[in-house]
Amino acid sequence: MLPRMQMILIVGLLVGMWMSHAVRADEGMWLFTRPPTKILKDKYNFEPDAQWLEHVQKSCVRFSSGGSGSLISSDGLVMTNHHVGSDQIGDLSTPERDLLKDGYYAKTQADELKCDNLELDILWTIRDVTKDVEGAVTANMSAADAGAAKRKKIAAIEKEAKENAGLQAQVVTLYHGARYHLYLYKRYTDIRLVFAPESQIAFFGGDNDNFEYPRFNLDVCFFRIYENDKPLKPEHYLRWSEVGASEGDLTFICGHPGRTQRLFTMDHLRVLRDVMYPMRLQQLWRREVQLLGFSARGAENERISQNDVHGVQNSRKAITGVLAGLQDPAVMAAKEKAERDLRAAVDANPAYKSKWGGAWDKIAEAEKKYATFALRYSALEGRPIFGSDLYGFARTIVRLAAEKPKPDADRLTGYHDADLDSVYLRLYSTAPVYDALEVDRLASGLSFLVERFGGDDPLVVKLLDGQSPRARAQALVSGTTLKNVDARRKLADGGAKALAESTDPMIKFAALVDPEGRALRKRYEDEVESVERENYAKIAAASFAIHGEDAYPDATFTLRFAFGPIKGFKTGDTTVPAFTDFAGLYQRHAERKGEFPFNLPPRWENEKSKVNLKTPYNFICTADIIGGNSGSPVINKAGEVIGIVFDGNLDGLVWDIAYTDVTARAVCVDARAIIQSMRDLYGAGALADEILSSAKKKATTM
Amino acid sequence: MLPRMQMILIVGLLVGMWMSHAVRADEGMWLFTRPPTKILKDKYNFEPDAQWLEHVQKSCVRFSSGGSGSLISSDGLVMTNHHVGSDQIGDLSTPERDLLKDGYYAKTQADELKCDNLELDILWTIRDVTKDVEGAVTANMSAADAGAAKRKKIAAIEKEAKENAGLQAQVVTLYHGARYHLYLYKRYTDIRLVFAPESQIAFFGGDNDNFEYPRFNLDVCFFRIYENDKPLKPEHYLRWSEVGASEGDLTFICGHPGRTQRLFTMDHLRVLRDVMYPMRLQQLWRREVQLLGFSARGAENERISQNDVHGVQNSRKAITGVLAGLQDPAVMAAKEKAERDLRAAVDANPAYKSKWGGAWDKIAEAEKKYATFALRYSALEGRPIFGSDLYGFARTIVRLAAEKPKPDADRLTGYHDADLDSVYLRLYSTAPVYDALEVDRLASGLSFLVERFGGDDPLVVKLLDGQSPRARAQALVSGTTLKNVDARRKLADGGAKALAESTDPMIKFAALVDPEGRALRKRYEDEVESVERENYAKIAAASFAIHGEDAYPDATFTLRFAFGPIKGFKTGDTTVPAFTDFAGLYQRHAERKGEFPFNLPPRWENEKSKVNLKTPYNFICTADIIGGNSGSPVINKAGEVIGIVFDGNLDGLVWDIAYTDVTARAVCVDARAIIQSMRDLYGAGALADEILSSAKKKATTM
Repeated sequence: MLPRMQMILIVGLLVGMWMSHAVRADEGMWLFTRPPTKILKDKYNFEPDAQWLEHVQKSCVRFSSGGSGSLISSDGLVMTNHHVGSDQIGDLSTPERDLLKDGYYAKTQADELKCDNLELDILWTIRDVTKDVEGAVTANMSAADAGAAKRKKIAAIEKEAKENAGLQAQVVTLYHGARYHLYLYKRYTDIRLVFAPESQIAFFGGDNDNFEYPRFNLDVCFFRIYENDKPLKPEHYLRWSEVGASEGDLTFICGHPGRTQRLFTMDHLRVLRDVMYPMRLQQLWRREVQLLGFSARGAENERISQNDVHGVQNSRKAITGVLAGLQDPAVMAAKEKAERDLRAAVDANPAYKSKWGGAWDKIAEAEKKYATFALRYSALEGRPIFGSDLYGFARTIVRLAAEKPKPDADRLTGYHDADLDSVYLRLYSTAPVYDALEVDRLASGLSFLVERFGGDDPLVVKLLDGQSPRARAQALVSGTTLKNVDARRKLADGGAKALAESTDPMIKFAALVDPEGRALRKRYEDEVESVERENYAKIAAASFAIHGEDAYPDATFTLRFAFGPIKGFKTGDTTVPAFTDFAGLYQRHAERKGEFPFNLPPRWENEKSKVNLKTPYNFICTADIIGGNSGSPVINKAGEVIGIVFDGNLDGLVWDIAYTDVTARAVCVDARAIIQSMRDLYGAGALADEILSSAKKKATTM
Repeated sequence: MLPRMQMILIVGLLVGMWMSHAVRADEGMWLFTRPPTKILKDKYNFEPDAQWLEHVQKSCVRFSSGGSGSLISSDGLVMTNHHVGSDQIGDLSTPERDLLKDGYYAKTQADELKCDNLELDILWTIRDVTKDVEGAVTANMSAADAGAAKRKKIAAIEKEAKENAGLQAQVVTLYHGARYHLYLYKRYTDIRLVFAPESQIAFFGGDNDNFEYPRFNLDVCFFRIYENDKPLKPEHYLRWSEVGASEGDLTFICGHPGRTQRLFTMDHLRVLRDVMYPMRLQQLWRREVQLLGFSARGAENERISQNDVHGVQNSRKAITGVLAGLQDPAVMAAKEKAERDLRAAVDANPAYKSKWGGAWDKIAEAEKKYATFALRYSALEGRPIFGSDLYGFARTIVRLAAEKPKPDADRLTGYHDADLDSVYLRLYSTAPVYDALEVDRLASGLSFLVERFGGDDPLVVKLLDGQSPRARAQALVSGTTLKNVDARRKLADGGAKALAESTDPMIKFAALVDPEGRALRKRYEDEVESVERENYAKIAAASFAIHGEDAYPDATFTLRFAFGPIKGFKTGDTTVPAFTDFAGLYQRHAERKGEFPFNLPPRWENEKSKVNLKTPYNFICTADIIGGNSGSPVINKAGEVIGIVFDGNLDGLVWDIAYTDVTARAVCVDARAIIQSMRDLYGAGALADEILSSAKKKATTM
């Protein structure tokens, strides 16, 4: 499955830009404000107008849990992937009511289950604020100072915009510093679970089939947005296609691709290949083995750790694919040639050379420096190491106490006024916290620090406090009060004074990590991020000057659209067809003797006779997607839903660094399979009716 | 399961010594030439005489596949663990006849299956050659030169001994350089499989229950030694106990513990904790995830990779346990105190100080240096990275061509005349080579080199030859002729000339790796091993001077015996009994719903009524064992077999660096369970009869 956004996000690692000067085939994750009008017209004879674009934009939804989705009914129904909703589905489960295992369908709105800790954003307006941001920089500022000035300015713009518009505000850095756009979002926080099939049909084939094709996955689930305790009546929502799609049909995939690094400089890519990705994979391999061991110890362990397991396995497989691309000398040679050509063109023009010629070496220097502290930085400032909810609460409380008293613009990233609603939503989440899993996460994290920092590292010695990693983890989890929401609230409200008086071991533990974490973050921002922004902006300017501005920026977990036809492919002598069907699902089940992960949920196994085996199930297209696109609607020219994207194939993993459409594909669930299974297997005809009857209502703006 | 010797062996990593001055409880892996007579007499009122020692020594067997075993019948029957024999059992399997899955029993001697590539050694004589070896060193030699001189002398001693005695000769370095013993072995190479139960009962509970207790494993299999195509009539073999053992009974475990590092210097241990073990675990985690992915792709993949999977999982769990000990500040503090006391005693005596005082710092310096090239050394000279059989053949052929023309004493370790029989046995093995697994191993190895050396590393660039790791691996496996034994023989016989003319891509590939591999090996021998030997010998001398010589050396995969009673333990409020029984097996099966790895082979499930549920199954004792002891017989004072050791529990993994007997235990299969299951479930009554009737024959020397 496509990685959800936060799954693949490595602190500060995956930022980038792309300046195409020879956009091939169906390449590109395009801004709604800069659609590839000419390409679409020339190749597909299609010209989306402003209304089309606005309608689609405002029908798309971003999930704070790290994926995409779309409004698909006049009563605020939202569709996304099962693997995007799985955190919530898991949080709503108990040992007695395992919604991941058994699925869920709310027959009436009263049965819809309110999610904790989930925000849905709809992008409402876009404004270019590049000049405002750049205006904060004065002549002769160092890269670090310029970076800091821009960050302050961005915080101020966001704060002001939020206050004025009453919408969630985010300044998005595009082309890695060449452009800054202010995005205003409508944010919804009363989100309720409507329908989810069983994990086993959503993720049929498991890690084995993940990132493969042909596929047979019903990777879909449905939520409803509520406002004032009533279903949202959205201005815009996507209509469901009555007829579905066929091979050759043009598709649009609209969602929030997370991060790409398509034209990172070669030296930057080398650091990714030789340092960053291997480092990340080492952590994922390690954690996967540990989690599988934890999960195997019993049914309840399996239940509470399954989201962690899937997340780690998915990231591992995704990064393995990207790294395979980086390790392929042919892929690197092609990218090296493009860089050489651009640099030669810059060097050939003295004015260009003096303005932009040094940018590549500056980035190389910054990345090499970053490589020396990236492990420590990601260990202390990233999520993956501790992964612990309780540690996360403690860190937030410790930082809130330090940051809230400061002027907004001076605060640590993530603690500006514009961020605080989200911070509190997470901090006061009532989602279950499992002691056994928390101990495992913390013991793993502590042991990782000893492995990598060394047992005599002063921070490690302080954190272990004379105990083994596992004993220390047990003491922290059994000793903390932070499992209790009220205790968290009291500490957060009490600020620095409450903290100073607290004897909570987890709070003290987080306070021990905090100073070095902050120092590393500052180092990263000053010595890496700021240098990248300044110099990638120069490379962008060079590329614009030489190749023109007909380009899309690298992905930034903000709204884009991609396009491309539904299309099979050949690999060796094998032709892989564009569509699978339900018959194929049962065939694969039989071939693998129904053994995990090829087992089927009881209803799929026992009620096979109800299933129309010819129903199209999954399909592939050439649209250019990446992790974060999970749950994006797949629509046709008419803006109708023909499916939902949930994966790319293995050959598509290289899309992180370069687009190709020979065998690389996006993998989607067919809209017809969704309606069919609702009606035939889940007794969810009413939900299918809602979707299809909404589709018949006239669109307000199309 | 206890790691087999080669499983846990890290090139040059796990060598060491231990000098006890306060041997506690049942500690110690004792030399047969220096038994702990006083302790045994004082604590257990038992005095093994020379006859007892010789009889047991000559009944014990060392497996070249990395474990221990014992002769248990007058017709050369040998018992070991299933996990020691599993390579051979796997090699004798085909997709149609899966002996690992279904087990095997040869009803007649004609049905016994001859193993390829297996040598069994029986230790026959022991001679102290310390003075000879030391005599090769002249005054003022550097550590590197002294080390080289000793290695030459050792090769000469072995060569001469082999020629004179017609026995396999090995000079064993004890106390890491303080003593050298010449061991002469009777070696047998016609070994046939007699009986093996199903993997699933041998390894019931799988990775989940591995290194745990209570346990329910029939981890046993039987081979027969043949000589001149007839069953061996051994001079010595162990008698089977008629009555079996009870809690409190004293046990002796006699076998070949692989490596311990009980009194490595603190700085040496710190390098293990912070560099070596994390590095090794990173490789194991990585490979485990990859192998699980490979195995999941189908039944045949699962079959051909299961020994790799088990091996990697087992090493991973074992090293995790050792590392947990090293990461426990309390364990390290205790070891630090012992070192501080010894060093203080040395420093307090000016003569001692001038002779031995500098040894600790010299070792620290060498280990720190080693840490800088250990990754590269283990990647190029160790087995784990490539793991490929075909690459192994190529490397052997390349090295034979270079080494054989040299005078014996000048050759690379492993290529002396005394080693060549073994080298050829492995090289000309007809054990199956599986293309798919070979590609996976090589692709993994190549990708590892890119990850760790960097994609622009000159050796990496040469090895990849412009292809991605996977494409290159495929080309190597499909292009090589080395799958064919005759092709190997022809190249090996042809020497340097044949190699120069060969166009075999795997040969060329191995030749690319060879120069740097050799250079690193030399560096290791000169800068690490030689320094360790010189200075650990000094620390040994200091310890002998201060604490006396009543000490056992660290394990060296040579014959030792350990002792201790059968004994349960308490953990928290839980009392863990010393014995399990067959009833417990069925209970655990039921608790875990018979799901893998808690499923049972059909005969165990369907013929439960035949099983006497009260039969003792597994038991624990305090005898001091480690990886390599796998398959060691567990005997009573009378020298009778009461069981076979197959594992230690998790708390026992710390035995690598320190003995404790609070909750740490060796885990054994009860002799009665073996006979019972042979009779009741396997129709192998004749084999049980052979064992028991042999037991009634009078021992020649007891």
